[in-house]
Amino acid sequence: MKSWINELKALLGDCVSTEPDVLQEHATDKWHAAALPDAVVLARSAEQVAAAVTFAAQHNLPITARGAGVGYVGGCVPVQGGIVISTALMQRIIEVNPADGVAVVEAGVLTADLQEACLKQGWFYPPDPASRKESSIGGNIATNAGGPRCLKYGVTRAYVLGLQVVLADGRVLNCGGRTHKNKQGFDLVGLFCGSEGMLGIITQATLRIIPAPQARAALHASFPQFALAAAAVQNILQGGHLPAAIEITDAFTLAAARNHLGPGIFPADAQGHIIVEIDGRADAVASELTDIERILNKTGATQVITARTEAEVESIWQLRREFSYSLKATGLTKLNEDIVIPRSALVELVEFCESMQRETGIPVACFGHSGDGNIHTNVMVLKDSNGNDMRPPADALVNRLFDWVMAHGGSITGEHGIGLAKAPWFARAVGAEAIAVHRALKAALDPHGLLNPGKMGL
Amino acid sequence: MKSWINELKALLGDCVSTEPDVLQEHATDKWHAAALPDAVVLARSAEQVAAAVTFAAQHNLPITARGAGVGYVGGCVPVQGGIVISTALMQRIIEVNPADGVAVVEAGVLTADLQEACLKQGWFYPPDPASRKESSIGGNIATNAGGPRCLKYGVTRAYVLGLQVVLADGRVLNCGGRTHKNKQGFDLVGLFCGSEGMLGIITQATLRIIPAPQARAALHASFPQFALAAAAVQNILQGGHLPAAIEITDAFTLAAARNHLGPGIFPADAQGHIIVEIDGRADAVASELTDIERILNKTGATQVITARTEAEVESIWQLRREFSYSLKATGLTKLNEDIVIPRSALVELVEFCESMQRETGIPVACFGHSGDGNIHTNVMVLKDSNGNDMRPPADALVNRLFDWVMAHGGSITGEHGIGLAKAPWFARAVGAEAIAVHRALKAALDPHGLLNPGKMGL
Repeated sequence: MKSWINELKALLGDCVSTEPDVLQEHATDKWHAAALPDAVVLARSAEQVAAAVTFAAQHNLPITARGAGVGYVGGCVPVQGGIVISTALMQRIIEVNPADGVAVVEAGVLTADLQEACLKQGWFYPPDPASRKESSIGGNIATNAGGPRCLKYGVTRAYVLGLQVVLADGRVLNCGGRTHKNKQGFDLVGLFCGSEGMLGIITQATLRIIPAPQARAALHASFPQFALAAAAVQNILQGGHLPAAIEITDAFTLAAARNHLGPGIFPADAQGHIIVEIDGRADAVASELTDIERILNKTGATQVITARTEAEVESIWQLRREFSYSLKATGLTKLNEDIVIPRSALVELVEFCESMQRETGIPVACFGHSGDGNIHTNVMVLKDSNGNDMRPPADALVNRLFDWVMAHGGSITGEHGIGLAKAPWFARAVGAEAIAVHRALKAALDPHGLLNPGKMGL
Repeated sequence: MKSWINELKALLGDCVSTEPDVLQEHATDKWHAAALPDAVVLARSAEQVAAAVTFAAQHNLPITARGAGVGYVGGCVPVQGGIVISTALMQRIIEVNPADGVAVVEAGVLTADLQEACLKQGWFYPPDPASRKESSIGGNIATNAGGPRCLKYGVTRAYVLGLQVVLADGRVLNCGGRTHKNKQGFDLVGLFCGSEGMLGIITQATLRIIPAPQARAALHASFPQFALAAAAVQNILQGGHLPAAIEITDAFTLAAARNHLGPGIFPADAQGHIIVEIDGRADAVASELTDIERILNKTGATQVITARTEAEVESIWQLRREFSYSLKATGLTKLNEDIVIPRSALVELVEFCESMQRETGIPVACFGHSGDGNIHTNVMVLKDSNGNDMRPPADALVNRLFDWVMAHGGSITGEHGIGLAKAPWFARAVGAEAIAVHRALKAALDPHGLLNPGKMGL
């Protein structure tokens, strides 16, 4: 045991754990990398976070902030050991205040819990990462989480008004506030949003909430060609609609879903599929649903199924979730890359993935948030005759995918972040000037490089 | 003439001016401060901006970036002389691309011109600062401009996907891109939004555009007490409505409008007034207007006037503009402070302003964006017997106003920024930790302090 650990325990009492199972639990996220911390601080307050960071700064120890630990890029893996500071126990919803249009929460509050607390008062916190039932607001902010509804509502950043952040030297910064506009100096709130624990540790957030839409409805539609599904996305938007979400699914995923759910679920010839959710005033939603149905039929849909009740809408989203499970049910490991492309490049992306698949035999399944071009592209890892994953060819294919995305004005990550997983491509994706600016900002706010070291390749 | 000027002219040719009238024109914005630059570069390309900045960096000369020069806080006043770099001539709309949902523009494009170009294709760029016909996108981004529609649509930041920025040493940074989601590293785009020319010079922007709403409608309503108008704001939002804009006006402004426009314009007893604009699908807008009308009547409005056609809606906004002219028509100088308060503090703010007015005799007129608490609070400068402005008592009142705002969780600026005008209060408004972070960021990106020196008190 490191010599400083007893000192830390004396300082912070039973918040500090060095139990092997606790260290193990805090060694990973949902990606494959793992590294044991020397100690875990399960903080219950910003003061404890600040005390732990001050201690670490004094002892020159690496600090890795951790929310709910459900990231996809190894962002909270303590690759240099040291102290993991978890905000998972800071779960207080301090305030849901419709009169001011704000909610104030500790960093560890689960996103779904906040959403529920708002809905109870008829208010709405829109960001909806797929992980919302298990991811925390602090983690959502640190990764600037997205989700299907970003098409209409924007990403997490659009809802963060104020932050309490523990800086690298242990000082507590309050930035922004509870006003809906704030032009007091640089946008510090924005800088900490998406900073992946490398510039400070978020302990509390003041969030913008809006009146909940009266009603929602959805539909899903199957097309005989993927290109027609992509054309439908364009036609909906060009028709003047801004749905909450438009999700698209390719032929490979549909085939996997048929295998998993049974053949009757889509028309036999479905090669592309979209889900559209709209929300707003009840009368508007009803008439808009009809308009969109017409657009889809005109674009060549072979089946359009509408959902007007909450239960029906939920069942469409359940279908969406089944796409993921269907890919898992193939028994193959999937490398889920959350690339983003300009919306007009959707067909080109899928054709490129199909051509790689023909060439290499490695299946590539594309589905996701077509409205904002954020397509979860799943490279399926084939197994060798002994049942072991054949990673090198799959990794090579991911490499080609990222090359293509960068060459087509895309982003290699739209939601998950850089962390460890995307670090090898980061410099190429953003360019030398952006890397220099990242380094300068990192050095300015964390001169000793203690906060989440080893991430983003910085 | 400074010795370096001929060298700059040799480098950049007829972009460089030292004509007295050109220097004069670039000495001020809409605030009262003025300082002559030594030279003005009227850049026509990012390359010219970069060349001018590189030159300035080599010669250790102050650089002040300038868009359309219509700011309210002296943000582009070259207080240390040196070179003003104007992007006003960079007016190319490079692309309006609905298929990708983006517009790409040079920094000098006027906001209204971009909006018109989008609308021609049925698309919409929502940010709507009052200055939109004379302010440029570059300036809008540098100040993270707001406007009435921010209630529903958010501020400029929410529409900036990518930026081209000339850094303090002349390097050209491209950050973000043309994708609607992008989690590649820190949010550099956000950092430059609202940085008031102190971290880099914006030369080009890729903006998010959305399908234009089918229809809009508006209404305005008068109330016998300001508190009822404020209650109406809450009742509309609590009723599940998220209008594009809700503007509120106090009794003093209404009285000035009566003097200016004639007595018939509002009910004689009107002490508070709101304007509501809604947009969306045509059928939804029609029914929502009726719902909101009902809420206003229930809240005690003595007059509600609805506007269903474009011309009628425009006439309501014309009325809103007349409020400003009416205050000007009093003949008094107005100190227009764009404070923001938590939305629930609206009545308290107006009562505080009324109490200051009773105590000092100095009129204070409040009107503005009540939906997001961003109230333009106009302190009217009384004149002495010689017709000269009596500034000290008015300035003292602004001081008290800011004290009150800071004590009530507000922001001293929601739209205009800090610049020179708000610099004296900036440190108190954001706190010592935030100032330290500002200084660290400034030193990181502009180590020699050449970009817009003397602003924000940094």
